[in-house]
Amino acid sequence: MPAQPRTIAVLGGTGAEGGGLALRWARAGHRVILGSRNPEKAAKVCADLNAAAGVDSIRFLDNRAAAAAAEVVVLTVPHAAQRATVEEVRDALAGKVLIDATVPLVPPKVSRVQLPAGGSAVAAIQALLGEPVRVVSAFQNVSAHALRDPAHDVDCDVLVCGDDPAAREIVIGLAHDVGLRAFHAGPIANSAAAEALTSILIAINIRYKVPGAGIRITGVPAAPA
Amino acid sequence: MPAQPRTIAVLGGTGAEGGGLALRWARAGHRVILGSRNPEKAAKVCADLNAAAGVDSIRFLDNRAAAAAAEVVVLTVPHAAQRATVEEVRDALAGKVLIDATVPLVPPKVSRVQLPAGGSAVAAIQALLGEPVRVVSAFQNVSAHALRDPAHDVDCDVLVCGDDPAAREIVIGLAHDVGLRAFHAGPIANSAAAEALTSILIAINIRYKVPGAGIRITGVPAAPA
Repeated sequence: MPAQPRTIAVLGGTGAEGGGLALRWARAGHRVILGSRNPEKAAKVCADLNAAAGVDSIRFLDNRAAAAAAEVVVLTVPHAAQRATVEEVRDALAGKVLIDATVPLVPPKVSRVQLPAGGSAVAAIQALLGEPVRVVSAFQNVSAHALRDPAHDVDCDVLVCGDDPAAREIVIGLAHDVGLRAFHAGPIANSAAAEALTSILIAINIRYKVPGAGIRITGVPAAPA
Repeated sequence: MPAQPRTIAVLGGTGAEGGGLALRWARAGHRVILGSRNPEKAAKVCADLNAAAGVDSIRFLDNRAAAAAAEVVVLTVPHAAQRATVEEVRDALAGKVLIDATVPLVPPKVSRVQLPAGGSAVAAIQALLGEPVRVVSAFQNVSAHALRDPAHDVDCDVLVCGDDPAAREIVIGLAHDVGLRAFHAGPIANSAAAEALTSILIAINIRYKVPGAGIRITGVPAAPA
């Protein structure tokens, strides 16, 4: 069990990245709720994830109900759905930590950095929600492919950006619970670096024909393991 | 000796990052010319670098003469001096590879990502110079502190961005010559990620009290060593 079991809503949890996080958090002993607009798909994914995690604790609700029931809300939807999803659950977010893993990819050139005006898709959500919600950017660089395979460790560190250090600390703990090293990486504006880096990792995947390049931070001897 | 000894002009070579690269390229057998606007300072730095590298081949010229004499020109000046330096040497760059290591830090908040309008300081230089010059972005994330200590390997990979794959390949070779792993990281627009990442590394240096955090790319088994 984790030091502090939490109720975590994963909006977009039926996708690859969200599903991988949900699976690993459930295995670690957290209470995971998938948020989805499609109950049939959610039921299927939920059953698959419970089986893969060897648990029966993952459940699903619509996005609003999932966010309302959770202490920590995680956003793992495509960039095109980011703002609408946040607006949908906004009433349920006050006082909570919102982990936003959004990467502003612009199909079809997803290996090309194309940051939105202002620089960061996640910083824009913090600006939208204001002080009542502590937005923390994390998990942009972690391969969904690797997350979905619970038999293997994930060879990637997590850059954790947010304006509230205590909220960053909660997210670093949640990363540790799934076996990931994670680092305080500065204010929410710094999310631009993590968001942009994902396109470079995709470019490297293509160029070097690998399924999931990642990053490690070096030079920090006492880094959390 | 490197596979292909080159004449390399390092503009801003009297600074920490440029000096570190100059020292290591000279040790590897390349012909290095520091470009500087200050002959007295350049003479002093040149002597120090030759002594540290155990060579006497590093010399200095003014920026224009250095760029004119070189096959490859490297830009390691502060962001505030980037465009003026490029304009100063522009006539000497046609047909050459310009390696631009500029990081658009905005003092005093250098640990906060503050990318310029358009996203990348280096992509802006490629746009300025146009097709006659092949601009390649590299070395933004490599600690000057580590580069200046030739007794130790540098625990950091180099992200190499540029629109011309052959030019990127030259830069990857030059990184290898100083013991750095380097990766094709996509078009020049992707430089935004490397530029932004430097502020995150500074934030990590401050938070974790280390002199030079870096990055490693994971998941690429056949990566160049």
